[in-house]
Amino acid sequence: MTLRIPAGDTLPRHVCDACQTIHYQNPKIVAGCIPEWEGRVLLCRRAIEPRYGYWTLPAGFMENGESTAAAAAREALEEAEAEVENLTLYAMYSLTHISQVYLMFRGALKEGRAGVGRESLEVKLFAEEEIPWEELAFPVVRETLRRYFEECRQGSFGLHMGDFGRGPDGRVIFRRY
Amino acid sequence: MTLRIPAGDTLPRHVCDACQTIHYQNPKIVAGCIPEWEGRVLLCRRAIEPRYGYWTLPAGFMENGESTAAAAAREALEEAEAEVENLTLYAMYSLTHISQVYLMFRGALKEGRAGVGRESLEVKLFAEEEIPWEELAFPVVRETLRRYFEECRQGSFGLHMGDFGRGPDGRVIFRRY
Repeated sequence: MTLRIPAGDTLPRHVCDACQTIHYQNPKIVAGCIPEWEGRVLLCRRAIEPRYGYWTLPAGFMENGESTAAAAAREALEEAEAEVENLTLYAMYSLTHISQVYLMFRGALKEGRAGVGRESLEVKLFAEEEIPWEELAFPVVRETLRRYFEECRQGSFGLHMGDFGRGPDGRVIFRRY
Repeated sequence: MTLRIPAGDTLPRHVCDACQTIHYQNPKIVAGCIPEWEGRVLLCRRAIEPRYGYWTLPAGFMENGESTAAAAAREALEEAEAEVENLTLYAMYSLTHISQVYLMFRGALKEGRAGVGRESLEVKLFAEEEIPWEELAFPVVRETLRRYFEECRQGSFGLHMGDFGRGPDGRVIFRRY
């Protein structure tokens, strides 16, 4: 495998010297949701790295052959044994420093039921005042929940976009747009 | 390379027998835009396969390290030498049969200027009645433009979501949600 710019391209790619196949590397989609139930939201405590033991919204890598909303629903089922319905897109965040795009939906948690999935230590419904803000797994989860509860108080929901990236000091910076 | 289910996973993956690296294959993001200028939109006639010679909106694969909006703006610059500003998300479509997610933005074409990019034969501004509906490159482009002009007439723009997939007869089916 050699890193070189293929004919007609503008960026270096991994090219197989034997068969000339170009192995493109592109951003991955992480699909997730905010499962809602009677004013509370469902969070999962992670049983896997990174951020083992920290709380997160159910979310994970989208698979080939599925739609974005189906991916978000599947992740809720896998991580929290939760059926979510009526998914609507709530936020799209580009994490440029790790080449991921987060698609976060809102969805109704069916009958408020959930269970501890294979990748979780614990799952629980939280009202705003119960959210463990200092024990959330990722900045993108904190931003999503912060915005969500702000809009719950206002009573209407928009679509939110922005970038997360690393600043010169190595810290993650959020830029809303 | 062997196709097998790695420990802790649920789907078969391409795993290197020599180094055990798992080569995940995930959906790719195609970022594009509707460049708007005085009631008209900019289309490009493709100088590349697939659909050589057909008209399309500027769009292409998102690259690592960029944001979704930056990717859409870059594609407009590459394919149509067009600077687009104030990008807002207009549609998100999952193409499940080819594992792509289209993110289509609306954006203001700066000073109405454009030129023929390397991957285009021709670029041109079209009013609704001039759109070459029978010579559009892809169903996703037709759906985006159809919805866009409908909303232009209504005077307000929403966010549109849906799936494209293959039906039992092999034809591409669109499902809006």
